[in-house]
Amino acid sequence: MNQNQLPTIVLASRSPRRAALLRQMGIPFRIVSDDIPEESAGRADPVEHVIELSRIKAKAVLDRVEEGIIVGADTVVYLDGEILGKPKDADEARAMLTKLSGRTHAVFTGFTIIQVNDGDPFSDVEKTSVTFRHLESWEIDDYVQTGGPMDKAGGYGIQDRSGLFVDRIDGCFYNVVGFPLTKFYQGLKRILDVDTLRRIINSGGGIPG
Amino acid sequence: MNQNQLPTIVLASRSPRRAALLRQMGIPFRIVSDDIPEESAGRADPVEHVIELSRIKAKAVLDRVEEGIIVGADTVVYLDGEILGKPKDADEARAMLTKLSGRTHAVFTGFTIIQVNDGDPFSDVEKTSVTFRHLESWEIDDYVQTGGPMDKAGGYGIQDRSGLFVDRIDGCFYNVVGFPLTKFYQGLKRILDVDTLRRIINSGGGIPG
Repeated sequence: MNQNQLPTIVLASRSPRRAALLRQMGIPFRIVSDDIPEESAGRADPVEHVIELSRIKAKAVLDRVEEGIIVGADTVVYLDGEILGKPKDADEARAMLTKLSGRTHAVFTGFTIIQVNDGDPFSDVEKTSVTFRHLESWEIDDYVQTGGPMDKAGGYGIQDRSGLFVDRIDGCFYNVVGFPLTKFYQGLKRILDVDTLRRIINSGGGIPG
Repeated sequence: MNQNQLPTIVLASRSPRRAALLRQMGIPFRIVSDDIPEESAGRADPVEHVIELSRIKAKAVLDRVEEGIIVGADTVVYLDGEILGKPKDADEARAMLTKLSGRTHAVFTGFTIIQVNDGDPFSDVEKTSVTFRHLESWEIDDYVQTGGPMDKAGGYGIQDRSGLFVDRIDGCFYNVVGFPLTKFYQGLKRILDVDTLRRIINSGGGIPG
């Protein structure tokens, strides 16, 4: 790699939320992703599950990427010893939201960074606690009707109107959206020199607010 | 007001973030706002300060609104007994961010809801704790250069690239952006019947995520 050229960040994820978050922070990237079913990591422990799936996602595209940094990520909701992934249909979405109503659950996102042609993958995980207020059944029904739950772990997206379900969070907000930006940035700090990191962050511009 | 007609929500605020948040939650509204200087409420206590300023903002437009619900809001950052409003220039922004680096501060948003032609104003306040990681001086400089701090309490906007400064939050995320959506929604629940509230929330659509 040319010394003056910035390493390309390759997002191995189809989540439009992850792409939007990277854009928001001014981090330039391109997307190369496979369709990896959630069942590919069958772990009962949520930390092991999201890290394993993030590794699988990142490694799956390794032979199609010639240089740069590959990032895989996976997010789950965890309550009562159960991992909640994406609901299969409206009924399952309703059941998940009914379960989350009035209670505190955990959101785990694991991510894996692979530097192409350079050493070991780096993985990390972020946990955020999310407390829902008590939900009326019509609030759940109306939200399910919007289609919002359908492609999201736990059946909700805190950045859409189900944000009105959330009383408080404890931890990283962006982790709940699907990608722990600060922890990812700190991961980049471990593998890149300051000058390169700074140029990456400043090259994309980001949203001024 | 016609029984089938929804009350208009009037946002007495010029903050583009507050407008974006209401849009995101699918709450229809229009903006009628005066330019109220921060100095209009000179309270030392952050809770009294934001509630007073939110009342002043809402009342200031009362004679220009014929019906509906007026909403005023004000947000400050609070650390070491000091209220941090919007920085006046780049130097003050740098000083604020240097002060926030590596520490936990509080964000207070007060809001006031006035039903035009109907009774007393309702005010409430939300507090969120925000913990910044340690910031390098180049990270502060580069962010100040984007202009991001200039119209924001405490000199940062968690929804822009300064989100990378935040280690964790404890409480309502949207309060840090500038408007505590869940508490506002609960305020609406106090003054509107369920059917009207439900029609308001469903009329705007919101962002499916």
